[in-house]
Amino acid sequence: MEPVTPGTPGHRVVIVGGGFAGLYAARGLAGEPVDVALVDRRNHHLFQPLLYQVATGALSADEIAPPLRSVLRRQRNAAVLLADVEDIDLAGQAVTARGHDGHEHRLPYDTLVLAAGADTNYFGHDEWSDDAPGLKSIEDAVEIRRRILGAFEAAELEPDPVVRSALLTFVVVGAGPTGVELAGQIAELARDVLPQDFERIDTTSARVLLVDAAPHVLGGYHPRLSERAARDLRALGVEVRLEAPVAAVDAEAVTIAEERVPTRTVVWAAGIRASPLAALVAGKAGIEPDRGGRLPVGPDLTLPGHPEVFVLGDMASVDGVPGVAPAAMQMGRHAAAMISARVTASPLPDPFRYRDRGTLATIGRHRAVGQIRGLRLKGLPAWVLWLAVHLTYLVGFQNRLVVFVRWSFSYLTRGRSARVIPGRVSRG
Amino acid sequence: MEPVTPGTPGHRVVIVGGGFAGLYAARGLAGEPVDVALVDRRNHHLFQPLLYQVATGALSADEIAPPLRSVLRRQRNAAVLLADVEDIDLAGQAVTARGHDGHEHRLPYDTLVLAAGADTNYFGHDEWSDDAPGLKSIEDAVEIRRRILGAFEAAELEPDPVVRSALLTFVVVGAGPTGVELAGQIAELARDVLPQDFERIDTTSARVLLVDAAPHVLGGYHPRLSERAARDLRALGVEVRLEAPVAAVDAEAVTIAEERVPTRTVVWAAGIRASPLAALVAGKAGIEPDRGGRLPVGPDLTLPGHPEVFVLGDMASVDGVPGVAPAAMQMGRHAAAMISARVTASPLPDPFRYRDRGTLATIGRHRAVGQIRGLRLKGLPAWVLWLAVHLTYLVGFQNRLVVFVRWSFSYLTRGRSARVIPGRVSRG
Repeated sequence: MEPVTPGTPGHRVVIVGGGFAGLYAARGLAGEPVDVALVDRRNHHLFQPLLYQVATGALSADEIAPPLRSVLRRQRNAAVLLADVEDIDLAGQAVTARGHDGHEHRLPYDTLVLAAGADTNYFGHDEWSDDAPGLKSIEDAVEIRRRILGAFEAAELEPDPVVRSALLTFVVVGAGPTGVELAGQIAELARDVLPQDFERIDTTSARVLLVDAAPHVLGGYHPRLSERAARDLRALGVEVRLEAPVAAVDAEAVTIAEERVPTRTVVWAAGIRASPLAALVAGKAGIEPDRGGRLPVGPDLTLPGHPEVFVLGDMASVDGVPGVAPAAMQMGRHAAAMISARVTASPLPDPFRYRDRGTLATIGRHRAVGQIRGLRLKGLPAWVLWLAVHLTYLVGFQNRLVVFVRWSFSYLTRGRSARVIPGRVSRG
Repeated sequence: MEPVTPGTPGHRVVIVGGGFAGLYAARGLAGEPVDVALVDRRNHHLFQPLLYQVATGALSADEIAPPLRSVLRRQRNAAVLLADVEDIDLAGQAVTARGHDGHEHRLPYDTLVLAAGADTNYFGHDEWSDDAPGLKSIEDAVEIRRRILGAFEAAELEPDPVVRSALLTFVVVGAGPTGVELAGQIAELARDVLPQDFERIDTTSARVLLVDAAPHVLGGYHPRLSERAARDLRALGVEVRLEAPVAAVDAEAVTIAEERVPTRTVVWAAGIRASPLAALVAGKAGIEPDRGGRLPVGPDLTLPGHPEVFVLGDMASVDGVPGVAPAAMQMGRHAAAMISARVTASPLPDPFRYRDRGTLATIGRHRAVGQIRGLRLKGLPAWVLWLAVHLTYLVGFQNRLVVFVRWSFSYLTRGRSARVIPGRVSRG
């Protein structure tokens, strides 16, 4: 691998994806002698860790999705392009993207940063996606909100007790952080928020199932915290079903192991698969993606054989680095530091090392678990820390303040006020 | 007309529509010996006067659309039904509605309150609705936001200057308060908010046209205020075209009088037509709706020949009462007072009289016009009053606070942060 030639102003960096990795890479290049083009299909960054709160009516979509143009407006060397990447020419160093104007655009690059994230992984059962949507985009969250709140509305009117009970059954597949947080929120909706809102149904009778093939919730956590999270979930009324693989999903039921559970609302939080752009690039570079479709990258986060191509976030497979937001941010910063060093002919930074500052997952009011630098936290302290960390990392001071207002009211009134059931959104 | 028999607890009031009229009627019946069923297709009330701010990225949809169930949660005698009214049996005193559960429900009533509002009126040109959406629902606002912000995004990428200029042309048809406020906001977006966000296009070159067949903007206002509003709009860069009827709309242009103006974004704010339920009821009651499809009602707001049926808000035609939110609120309160008096055999209230507390329309930062009790206001005082009045009437303290935060930031930063361009929403 020969080093990239030190650049001049005019060194073109194309970043694909405005998630944590792409956005932190772009910001990390502020003031450097490069031209940054950030390409995204959507016009907004998305604070994915709070997406489940949009799905459960705690927050409004705009509150966790600042426009990319606003975030980068003061950065003179960065431009945003709303476009769908269709091809990547590794040999010719150019990205082809279908723009929001309908035309194809060819974007030549000197350095490419691939950070297009991941989609929901149905592990060979893509036919389940309609009946068990994943939670990866604003449209997903809005659709899941429509289903959850709509199920309570339909149950209120439904005369048949068998159908009513299916409507009041909610199944979350996957007991990682997203699944745990979502199941906890649905349980809180049913037990604390909605009981007084409905006349005919007892929303506290709703069943919330959290299902996973693995033997523990929050797989990567210390066993004691996993146990505590499972206990907290059960205290909230969530039925935690472990070592229970999902065998089938249809519009009327989920089959868990051998049992058919009638339900109208299933959310798939069981796994992710890297953006299809990873497979495209893998084919061209002659490398093999991992099981999650991710591209194996070296300790400098570049594609093997292509020092000018960085692969970050959920598209990258790096030993010992989990698929979490802080890792994506750190990768973004590292790539920016590498690019800066190259173009200014400065010493390169040390190889990428993920700094685990800790993990936190909230289960409900006053309930959370986390591990910070070897310290295990649970209950109220973990919950307060969770709130503080998420407010801090939310992009934009205005959104922080608005989310703080909403959380304060949710806490004080046990209400959820972002509950518009919108028309069906075409996803994709 | 014989008086309605004084009721007992159990007197069934069915209210169709959770807008200002229906919601104020429901609230006015709190504590009265009646059973209230509020039927709406949507699960939320909608603060329509601020809908244009959702369309222009100043506010998020949930912030002006509190769930009906939350608003009425403490009112023990009121239930909310999410259902689409399909038939009204005036003789048999029952409403048939298709519930969110998919079934038909028959709702017998002792008193019916019709407050289903209005749709956009294309005056015989319904074929224009796809290319010139109206602004009546959350879905409309989200779609218009998608078109406005999407046009800037497409223009940024568009190589053809002729197409680019069409993309940067925005036409608002109808110079009533909604049209004036929307045109003002689009102009502010183009001139103050977006210039730094784009690289290739000069957003300040965008054209915003406000078109009306009438000779004045804000038709019902004092001529001096109309003139002032037109001047304020022009100062913001809006091209105000009066006595300019729209002759045609298609996907690529609007024809104004004889001139074909290429554009990709047209919003129709030219008129409303009462909900189709008005025509249904008119047919059954053997009365003639007015030109706007509204039902003429007596000074007690009841349907001629049907003292048990109230018609309120945009469905009702009452001499001297404009189609504005305060009138709908007052009608709702009046109907509630009538119903209470009847069921408790108390003296009936005086016939309905609209109390004009004034009108206000904002054009932009520091610019507004209004007339309050004969006093004409303009400029900064009118603008501050507009802000205060709208915050006061917004339903829900939390929403007031969130909207206050957003407005403060918009004011201080000249930004708009609720700018998610969502996927296409199926309206309907």
